[in-house]
Amino acid sequence: MSNELGITADKRHDTSEWYTQVVKKAGLADYAPVKGCMVIKPYGMKLWESIKSEFDGKIQATGVDNAYFPLFIPESYLEKEEDIVEGFDPEVAWVTHGGEEELEERLAVRPTSESIIAPFMSDWVRSHRDLPLRLNQWANVVRWEATDTRPFLRTREFLWQEGHTAHATEEGADEETMLRLEQYQEVIENHLAIPSILGYKPEHDKFPGAKYTTTIETLMPDGKSIQSGTSHQLGQHFAEAFDITYEDENSEESTAWTTSWGLSTRTIGALIMAHGDNDGLRLPPSIAPTQVMIVPIYQEDNREEVLEYAESIKMAAEHAGGCGCQTSVRVEIDDREHRTPGYKFNEHELKGVPLRVEIGPNEMEDETVTTVRRDNGEKEMGIERREFTMNVKELLEDIQDSMYNELDEYLEENIREASSKNEILATIGKNRGYVKTRWCGDENCEEEIKNEVSAEIVVLPFREDSEPATVQDSEDEIEGECAVCGEKAERWAYFAKNY
Amino acid sequence: MSNELGITADKRHDTSEWYTQVVKKAGLADYAPVKGCMVIKPYGMKLWESIKSEFDGKIQATGVDNAYFPLFIPESYLEKEEDIVEGFDPEVAWVTHGGEEELEERLAVRPTSESIIAPFMSDWVRSHRDLPLRLNQWANVVRWEATDTRPFLRTREFLWQEGHTAHATEEGADEETMLRLEQYQEVIENHLAIPSILGYKPEHDKFPGAKYTTTIETLMPDGKSIQSGTSHQLGQHFAEAFDITYEDENSEESTAWTTSWGLSTRTIGALIMAHGDNDGLRLPPSIAPTQVMIVPIYQEDNREEVLEYAESIKMAAEHAGGCGCQTSVRVEIDDREHRTPGYKFNEHELKGVPLRVEIGPNEMEDETVTTVRRDNGEKEMGIERREFTMNVKELLEDIQDSMYNELDEYLEENIREASSKNEILATIGKNRGYVKTRWCGDENCEEEIKNEVSAEIVVLPFREDSEPATVQDSEDEIEGECAVCGEKAERWAYFAKNY
Repeated sequence: MSNELGITADKRHDTSEWYTQVVKKAGLADYAPVKGCMVIKPYGMKLWESIKSEFDGKIQATGVDNAYFPLFIPESYLEKEEDIVEGFDPEVAWVTHGGEEELEERLAVRPTSESIIAPFMSDWVRSHRDLPLRLNQWANVVRWEATDTRPFLRTREFLWQEGHTAHATEEGADEETMLRLEQYQEVIENHLAIPSILGYKPEHDKFPGAKYTTTIETLMPDGKSIQSGTSHQLGQHFAEAFDITYEDENSEESTAWTTSWGLSTRTIGALIMAHGDNDGLRLPPSIAPTQVMIVPIYQEDNREEVLEYAESIKMAAEHAGGCGCQTSVRVEIDDREHRTPGYKFNEHELKGVPLRVEIGPNEMEDETVTTVRRDNGEKEMGIERREFTMNVKELLEDIQDSMYNELDEYLEENIREASSKNEILATIGKNRGYVKTRWCGDENCEEEIKNEVSAEIVVLPFREDSEPATVQDSEDEIEGECAVCGEKAERWAYFAKNY
Repeated sequence: MSNELGITADKRHDTSEWYTQVVKKAGLADYAPVKGCMVIKPYGMKLWESIKSEFDGKIQATGVDNAYFPLFIPESYLEKEEDIVEGFDPEVAWVTHGGEEELEERLAVRPTSESIIAPFMSDWVRSHRDLPLRLNQWANVVRWEATDTRPFLRTREFLWQEGHTAHATEEGADEETMLRLEQYQEVIENHLAIPSILGYKPEHDKFPGAKYTTTIETLMPDGKSIQSGTSHQLGQHFAEAFDITYEDENSEESTAWTTSWGLSTRTIGALIMAHGDNDGLRLPPSIAPTQVMIVPIYQEDNREEVLEYAESIKMAAEHAGGCGCQTSVRVEIDDREHRTPGYKFNEHELKGVPLRVEIGPNEMEDETVTTVRRDNGEKEMGIERREFTMNVKELLEDIQDSMYNELDEYLEENIREASSKNEILATIGKNRGYVKTRWCGDENCEEEIKNEVSAEIVVLPFREDSEPATVQDSEDEIEGECAVCGEKAERWAYFAKNY
């Protein structure tokens, strides 16, 4: 493989360098001049736009309206909610000058928008008829993180959606929090083909000011967990701070309950990390901008015929199993003149195109195609063209499922139970992955582990018997003792190293 | 009409107050705590998303890829191109602190992104095969304007798309500039139903550093012009400043040519202003989130039947003239219990819904509907339901055309020729609109007018005989003398007051 395209680092042994090379060489992102910021290149942007359209469809179908709130939040607004200030102040980028003039009040570049949206909710909500109020924005946010920035996974500026809702009742807010978490799960499991674990964040790790925070965690091949989306039940905390009240059915004034929930470009980092291999990216068909790449192989004298045959395969495959008025499979032909077929094979492997179709004079003569799957490298020759177009959708679904199942097996294998501090430490040290353990709920017990192996409690999984998970979940109890201190355990906790 | 919904200002006599009321009462936007910034509310956001999807489709079909570049531009990058600094420095919002720490270098919140995109183009372009390079981003930008801010029309933060392209030849850049201008015209004329005038900006009013700037101007009912989009041929100026060079077919190093072009949320301001009336917004069907609003009229005892009939009309109308697998008309039923039909009529008029359908017991019995057009108030009763669903698409097209034609007539009437300074001043003073006049090309002649009536040259229209307009256009000459100084005229110029 040419130097330009080849990934020279091994994913398993040098994950960090491997990740950087894939991001750069597959054309996903580039480093910006400001440390910790990134440029999202067209190929990376296509992935984000796909995630966006997938999730946007779900929320619009369930009562959410898109809006846009200002980038700049006056310092005094940020200060209205104490926990927000404490939580985000160290990470805020401040605008102090407009043109030549110093501003009277500093403006925060939004790190998250509760403090600027809540005052408008207060304005817009008058009666119980205005509730639930469900808003979302697709926006950029800035968090001036000091350490360990990496394209997609941790950047100072990133793109995300942030949903903000207000409800008449606690139950309404609980349901909303869970609904959005489940929609994240649908996107991450079905669209990105990454299995996940849902649950709560420990009390001390929840969103500043929240009643509780739920999280969707995904396990990476290096045994570290990525928090891939969070959904917060904010209680009445923000409603009280910003006066979001409404007249209820009995004309009494009541305080609303609010939620917020966010999914960011970080999911692209998880996608790269979860599925990639030493040849580059591997994209699940559902999100792949090009699902089938046809590479024609020809000499000067049969060029036109081969291209014509390739074009006819493309047309047939595009409408395979569709309703006739829309293309249902995304197919491209790579007919670049100045590149060899071998170069093209490498490039599309690097870019993770799920299925390659090779078409040369033999295929043309026999009316067949040759296919190569990106997920497992399987090559199949001599597939009749009719058979190919009839089965191409199914084949892509099979690739999608295989990619999910591969990671799901890996996840299953990497949840290990431990029942003492030493066992937790040894398991994290040896295998990484999730260490499942009984926990008393005391932050100090987590600290003891954290100090020794820099792993923490990343999720308190929902109980298996509560489906869908509800907040009542946390009122049940489990048997046994905390693995660290031996006191009565309150619930199961998953320790892991994380991104 | 209730106070809450009614517009109390007259559009003609108190345009500014009328505009503010429509923006607020139709739920398009709200004022942000930071002066000159706005909140785009869900209804306003739907308009922007519609414009976005319309234009995005056009550019994607013509070779443009979306990407995302950082919000923050280091001061030293902004300074690399002298004209950009001079042009934008007075309007830049500066970030000086990240968390507790003062930054070593101030960061500009992007006022436009040439200075941050050009260095990456320099990196990404190596060979003539990498050209043309066509990038676009949908993003927020900030310009710290001091005066006369108004929601959509002029805000310190606004949403826009900015296209940035690099080409091997001057002709390539010329064609690109014109192509994007024409695509703006398609969106503004066909989607927003606003007629426009295309042409150049005068030399002294072009984008900082550009070879030339083209503009699409639209005339508002108060006789002022709105610059609704601009497309710039940047020459080799930026390519030289940022070293965007490529190896041409003969392996020689050449400098690229670049363009940039932008369309912003300002178009929503033009839309409101151009079509609105004293009852509120009037939306052309093409952009209206709801094209047909069904208002059911019932008593307690026939409620269910009326709603059922309304639902059947909705279903039939939604798929009218479509291909079967997609809805082709956007229809809603307003079945709110706590609002009277009269309240609903007013509200949907305020929100500019193009067609209202009233359905009561009579309509149900006769299997008919009653329709009311928002554009001209025309009410038609007793339309057979089959006739209605068969013709609804056509009816909406007719509304779209009528709205365009109404403004087109107004535009025709408001281009007045003047051949002396006094005539220009008198015409602007009396009628506003565009004053078409011969111009020598000297900025001083424009200044003379500007000083007296605060009108300026908003556009140098493309010559009528060059279609499509090309840059050669400016090399032709016209007969006659400059209306202001009497020297030989160089071309026609349109004076107008503007937003």
